[in-house]
Amino acid sequence: MTARVNINTLADIGAGQLPSMLVRQAVEMALAEDLGLVGDITTDATIPADAVARGVFAARTGGVVSGLDVARATFAALNPGVGFDAQVADGAQVAANTIVATVNGPARAILTGERVALNYMGRMSGIASLTRRYVDAVAGTGAAIADTRKTTPGLRAFEKYAVRCGGGLNHRIGLFDAVLIKDNHIVAAGGLELAVRAARARAGHLVKIEIEVDTLDQLDRVLAMAQTAPVDAVLLDNMTLDQLRVAVASVAAARASTGARIATEASGGVSLATVRAIAESGVDVISVGALTHSAPVLDLGLDFEG
Amino acid sequence: MTARVNINTLADIGAGQLPSMLVRQAVEMALAEDLGLVGDITTDATIPADAVARGVFAARTGGVVSGLDVARATFAALNPGVGFDAQVADGAQVAANTIVATVNGPARAILTGERVALNYMGRMSGIASLTRRYVDAVAGTGAAIADTRKTTPGLRAFEKYAVRCGGGLNHRIGLFDAVLIKDNHIVAAGGLELAVRAARARAGHLVKIEIEVDTLDQLDRVLAMAQTAPVDAVLLDNMTLDQLRVAVASVAAARASTGARIATEASGGVSLATVRAIAESGVDVISVGALTHSAPVLDLGLDFEG
Amino acid sequence: MTARVNINTLADIGAGQLPSMLVRQAVEMALAEDLGLVGDITTDATIPADAVARGVFAARTGGVVSGLDVARATFAALNPGVGFDAQVADGAQVAANTIVATVNGPARAILTGERVALNYMGRMSGIASLTRRYVDAVAGTGAAIADTRKTTPGLRAFEKYAVRCGGGLNHRIGLFDAVLIKDNHIVAAGGLELAVRAARARAGHLVKIEIEVDTLDQLDRVLAMAQTAPVDAVLLDNMTLDQLRVAVASVAAARASTGARIATEASGGVSLATVRAIAESGVDVISVGALTHSAPVLDLGLDFEG
Amino acid sequence: MTARVNINTLADIGAGQLPSMLVRQAVEMALAEDLGLVGDITTDATIPADAVARGVFAARTGGVVSGLDVARATFAALNPGVGFDAQVADGAQVAANTIVATVNGPARAILTGERVALNYMGRMSGIASLTRRYVDAVAGTGAAIADTRKTTPGLRAFEKYAVRCGGGLNHRIGLFDAVLIKDNHIVAAGGLELAVRAARARAGHLVKIEIEVDTLDQLDRVLAMAQTAPVDAVLLDNMTLDQLRVAVASVAAARASTGARIATEASGGVSLATVRAIAESGVDVISVGALTHSAPVLDLGLDFEG
Amino acid sequence: MTARVNINTLADIGAGQLPSMLVRQAVEMALAEDLGLVGDITTDATIPADAVARGVFAARTGGVVSGLDVARATFAALNPGVGFDAQVADGAQVAANTIVATVNGPARAILTGERVALNYMGRMSGIASLTRRYVDAVAGTGAAIADTRKTTPGLRAFEKYAVRCGGGLNHRIGLFDAVLIKDNHIVAAGGLELAVRAARARAGHLVKIEIEVDTLDQLDRVLAMAQTAPVDAVLLDNMTLDQLRVAVASVAAARASTGARIATEASGGVSLATVRAIAESGVDVISVGALTHSAPVLDLGLDFEG
Amino acid sequence: MTARVNINTLADIGAGQLPSMLVRQAVEMALAEDLGLVGDITTDATIPADAVARGVFAARTGGVVSGLDVARATFAALNPGVGFDAQVADGAQVAANTIVATVNGPARAILTGERVALNYMGRMSGIASLTRRYVDAVAGTGAAIADTRKTTPGLRAFEKYAVRCGGGLNHRIGLFDAVLIKDNHIVAAGGLELAVRAARARAGHLVKIEIEVDTLDQLDRVLAMAQTAPVDAVLLDNMTLDQLRVAVASVAAARASTGARIATEASGGVSLATVRAIAESGVDVISVGALTHSAPVLDLGLDFEG
Repeated sequence: MTARVNINTLADIGAGQLPSMLVRQAVEMALAEDLGLVGDITTDATIPADAVARGVFAARTGGVVSGLDVARATFAALNPGVGFDAQVADGAQVAANTIVATVNGPARAILTGERVALNYMGRMSGIASLTRRYVDAVAGTGAAIADTRKTTPGLRAFEKYAVRCGGGLNHRIGLFDAVLIKDNHIVAAGGLELAVRAARARAGHLVKIEIEVDTLDQLDRVLAMAQTAPVDAVLLDNMTLDQLRVAVASVAAARASTGARIATEASGGVSLATVRAIAESGVDVISVGALTHSAPVLDLGLDFEG
Repeated sequence: MTARVNINTLADIGAGQLPSMLVRQAVEMALAEDLGLVGDITTDATIPADAVARGVFAARTGGVVSGLDVARATFAALNPGVGFDAQVADGAQVAANTIVATVNGPARAILTGERVALNYMGRMSGIASLTRRYVDAVAGTGAAIADTRKTTPGLRAFEKYAVRCGGGLNHRIGLFDAVLIKDNHIVAAGGLELAVRAARARAGHLVKIEIEVDTLDQLDRVLAMAQTAPVDAVLLDNMTLDQLRVAVASVAAARASTGARIATEASGGVSLATVRAIAESGVDVISVGALTHSAPVLDLGLDFEG
Repeated sequence: MTARVNINTLADIGAGQLPSMLVRQAVEMALAEDLGLVGDITTDATIPADAVARGVFAARTGGVVSGLDVARATFAALNPGVGFDAQVADGAQVAANTIVATVNGPARAILTGERVALNYMGRMSGIASLTRRYVDAVAGTGAAIADTRKTTPGLRAFEKYAVRCGGGLNHRIGLFDAVLIKDNHIVAAGGLELAVRAARARAGHLVKIEIEVDTLDQLDRVLAMAQTAPVDAVLLDNMTLDQLRVAVASVAAARASTGARIATEASGGVSLATVRAIAESGVDVISVGALTHSAPVLDLGLDFEG
Repeated sequence: MTARVNINTLADIGAGQLPSMLVRQAVEMALAEDLGLVGDITTDATIPADAVARGVFAARTGGVVSGLDVARATFAALNPGVGFDAQVADGAQVAANTIVATVNGPARAILTGERVALNYMGRMSGIASLTRRYVDAVAGTGAAIADTRKTTPGLRAFEKYAVRCGGGLNHRIGLFDAVLIKDNHIVAAGGLELAVRAARARAGHLVKIEIEVDTLDQLDRVLAMAQTAPVDAVLLDNMTLDQLRVAVASVAAARASTGARIATEASGGVSLATVRAIAESGVDVISVGALTHSAPVLDLGLDFEG
Repeated sequence: MTARVNINTLADIGAGQLPSMLVRQAVEMALAEDLGLVGDITTDATIPADAVARGVFAARTGGVVSGLDVARATFAALNPGVGFDAQVADGAQVAANTIVATVNGPARAILTGERVALNYMGRMSGIASLTRRYVDAVAGTGAAIADTRKTTPGLRAFEKYAVRCGGGLNHRIGLFDAVLIKDNHIVAAGGLELAVRAARARAGHLVKIEIEVDTLDQLDRVLAMAQTAPVDAVLLDNMTLDQLRVAVASVAAARASTGARIATEASGGVSLATVRAIAESGVDVISVGALTHSAPVLDLGLDFEG
Repeated sequence: MTARVNINTLADIGAGQLPSMLVRQAVEMALAEDLGLVGDITTDATIPADAVARGVFAARTGGVVSGLDVARATFAALNPGVGFDAQVADGAQVAANTIVATVNGPARAILTGERVALNYMGRMSGIASLTRRYVDAVAGTGAAIADTRKTTPGLRAFEKYAVRCGGGLNHRIGLFDAVLIKDNHIVAAGGLELAVRAARARAGHLVKIEIEVDTLDQLDRVLAMAQTAPVDAVLLDNMTLDQLRVAVASVAAARASTGARIATEASGGVSLATVRAIAESGVDVISVGALTHSAPVLDLGLDFEG
């Protein structure tokens, strides 16, 4: 590969990309929902076909931007002649009243697409903004903030991307890309070790296995089988801060004696009020369902000029 | 039609229905997102194909339930042998720790479908619950609470249904089923009256026309053309309480003199703290974007038995 | 919004637009039907890949044109290099042998797309032409001609647009955007007033309610409840001309006394022979199922040049 | 294969089947169009969920029935509990006021599905009825009546099936299953024989080749190359009756001398007034675009009982 | 039609085209499978968005190329800025280490699309290459090599095209475009002649009928009914070379006496070792399931430059 | 969860499941391809609607069975009345002439679905059978056999499942569920360590990272950064047996000194002839593209009874 540009750093890599086909399909679906069989009857009746308009997307309050490509694709789906210029990049933290993008071109397409573009950007930016608050809250502790599978049906790709825009990590994408063994699985499989071994046999060498433990006893049993049925991560669910500290120490001790790298993840009872204390227990990852299931939208608006 | 049941009241009519095809498509889409190409690898590896399970869906906090049919359809899509018995109906207000449904049957299908079912129900019930709080806040004033088009892309049908479950009204479904004339439309059409007349010409006799007014002057101009270019509703946007009261009085006066029925709708700056005062201004409808764009989920969980 | 053009009139607004995504999806569906898995085997075998052709779409008989954008999109889906230039606009009334569009470019794409383009345009223009005949027949009476839900499955958006091209109004788009209460609904709901009130409760402030009445008695009962359960329109079904005249007078009297605006719509037994007399009864709208269910195609053809 | 029934005749074979998946997809698409995101708001508001109804589908005028399975599938898609009992079979010729099917079960599903079921059945029966009139008009002549590709976009499968219900033959399904060489193909390929040979090379041994001829001269040239570039059928386009008779005789003579079986098809200028004379020229097949592009619907209605 | 190029020969016609919409849909489906919800995480993390790359697609071993348009469409779906230049045409026979195409542009899109492009091209070229070996093996005998319906689910259009690229003929595309009567059909229909007549009645004048015969007796019965129930082809299944020779002679004799053209097709037990002897029996067509069900891929690779 | 069955072992867990929705969609797609718009015209014309049949699916040669559920779903999609009884389970190794399933019910559905069912089962069983040969070849060595992303477009889920049925492991499912860093990524990222760190930052704690190394030097550099930029697996590409042995030893030494678990995978130049020697080098996994890109079908047939 001829890298014709000079790449000294990874600074431009950021949150990765949303597959462009997903974006196209998503905006077409959202527009279909909004346009039905007859389209924007108000705009069609009142705006001449050749009218042009110009506007700016502004953040009414501060936050982290996410979803600019989705907004761009929304207008493009309606009329390829609409110009959309992002003024910041996804992941940028902006102050209130920052212009995040400009749009110009056929007035009908801009008016018709406004709400869909805002619905995507508002939601995605809301998630990115909340994620960033959690990430900032644990700054310096070494803990990462991760999402969960508690996403809006149909929007998982977009919400997981928004979490990355806010500086968070993605937990597994779905039920298919990592193993997470919980109580029911252990009972049905006939015990902890049988469950892990069954999962290992099924999963292949490129799939990680995490196991949920609710007590320190359970954790000890998991660590004791590090040679026979190793796991890659433990999910410390609903533990107290004291329990978390002991758990982190146990895992560290196991690593010292066996070399086994086991990530520690805390979940349950996480809020902006509690997250830093949890992080200070030394866990590697803190997963937060609220990032995607309860983030308020970021208030964005489209202001027309002239 | 032979109505074989005795229908004395409309008590059983409620929030209407979600088209069943939409429900089937929605759960298939959400399951596809969660299962990918290989499915629930944890469950497949650890739960025998013939294991059965039994569990209850419980509300961890109080709220209004919505989405029971979606949950039922989720399990049915995975395995028609799963039994799902709703213990309450959509729209029911339940206390914390209420069991809202039971599920039993093949353990794999129940474990695999759990998250999708909860993701739908949690979100829909969250919207219904928030709607209900607004509806309760305006009880006795005569004002109705309505949603907006600020819905989650792809979930509009489900979110508008959830609003109805919470006792709210649906605003227009999309850009296609009612006219809502805003500033840009008026400017482009060449003035208020031209805009309304253009919309009327396009819209047909079964489409309502609403016009957004930001000032009392604008409202007076709208009312003045009640014979030549009548509208069905006025959207009083971001008005103060004083302005709202004047506006309501002006509309009432117009009706007294001309018979014209014009609904009044307030929007902008609506919160649980402000909504009752707004309602007491006498407006017919208050539309609240937050119902769908910022409702936190209702905390629901699936507890396994035995 | 900067409207860079001078808009003094609404003359350029016309029949509204077909959502462009619907057009793209529709032509892809129709082409898939015609091309199957191996495409146009005759053209592929006999026409060299680099052959070019030029042709004109001509109306063999006079009528109203509709569907030019659909024809354009058909060729574009096969080969973006095809040029398609409309010589008239949708809604234009043309004489026999008028050229309505020219097409030029890759011969294979033109030959392969010809039938799909003609199938759409012929049908849509047939509907527009028949609509125009009805509209012309009632000229000067004040009555509008409206379509129904008796459309071809899958083509409702296209057929309702064609009706607008012919100068007609759209009735409701589907079961979802307006209420139309018929006999069965009244019986099941427990009576006229209960039915209307139930519908009003469900429908929201931006949904119109129409009620079908078969007798003048029924109409009187509807008018009598104008304050308690008002409707927006009455569908006078299968009434004689005498009945229609009385009905129109009753509605006018109700308006005079209460100010209530109620649209009157006639349906049943409408043909080109009867429509003017019906219009002269004074009704506001006449709905005609035949516009979409029995319009013959407009005879259009593609003539190659050179 | 154990054929448990006694099959002495082919009497039960009829018009073939519509692939059941196509039927399911088609009714879901039509229902989606009619129900939108919120469904049948009139029925939902006024008909209790447990109301049941019973009705009959009746032909208001005489004709040939087609589409019973599509109607059945429409109700089944809404509610599997609806009973639908066909009283005649597709292809049956019925008198006015014949009951063709009964329906019973949940009232909501029946009312909601009524229009889609009638839209399909009316159109398909209209095509079957018109086809039957053409078939009857040529009875005893040996000529068959065939459809064309002038079908409604999206409904080709249904319209070709309806033609078979009326006793007609299907012409090719699309551009992919048979070769039909027209003027443009001949010119581009460099002549008649090159065109046929190119088509033969591309098409394989199970694809028939038809060639359109506009003059008797052209026909003679086609017949002259029966050994070097044989075709399976000739389309005699827009010929006079005299020309048709000569053409039929020429083809018969060619067969007598070479054994070549070549089907003769007439097209152009075919109406109920002219079809018998055309048939009496001795052609094998007469193709009629009007069967599918201009058939009026058969007037069917659903009458509720009780 | 103005054919602006000089067409003296059919040399440029070749294998026909793949419908471009099928190609677009196919690559989107394959990319969706490979990209999931988060895309190419390796490339996104390591390759800067503005890096460019340049590479060549090379055949590691000799064979026949097929699928260049599919590869081009793969990259275009990811990024329209990727340049793809075919160095040979589909159907070209190339030696080992031949460069078949070059690709250049955004490095991310090229790396991300590489595997999908190769998966299509490798498979299609594998089929084309194997077909060519069969075609070459029977060179000079007059027999054609045909495929079967034993194709990969979902890829029939692509595999049948690849067979044409290798110089083979397509057998019927599916169950819908030609009749192939086998034992079970004959038994159920009540005998050979009834089966053929039933098929003829159903099939129309542009559909060919082939009948499978397993014995020379069966063949004689088929030939005996050439006037009353003619077929277009006989499939001589699993016959010995001796039987094939007798069968070919019988068909030739029937043609001499009646003029009936009946194609002969051999199937069963065909391999590269046996195909020439089968061809020398004089059959017109030899169908080979292995072309599509067991062809190894052609080894193609993408080599980056610089 | 109440596990009503006694689960002492994991013997019944096997290869996991194919998501049932994927199976339904896949068979519908394949049937659509085979049935087109008019279905199985041979069967429709010759088999009475009420004929029933009974048959057995038999393996003509020995192998490993895969795809029984897909075959079952094929018939169910055509007619829910078809009975399909598997006689063995997916993953079973069967001898030639083993009956693997019986089918009985409506003759039309069985005949129409036969080819699609066989196309899926033949391909899937072919892959399972070839996988099993590789797995057997390395028996006792401790090496696992894994697939690659060289799958048939559209069939990845089915082919990866078939590999599991043959006793193989799945490599990553797509580009999204594991990181695999190759040369181009390293160059573009600015070096080995930067590439790994970038991937780690992007990937989250439940995603494994593998890196391809072509030389022992590269491997040493990877092992040297086990603390700063650890990887989970190394892909030893196209190494000699000697190189593989050294590589395995180096990885073991690294583990002894640091505790780091790094899986070793060999790829390139793998065939049934070479695989055991490769396995004996001590690698953990051997990935084989041929499992999915060049497996011949298993010869299965459907024999009718009676």
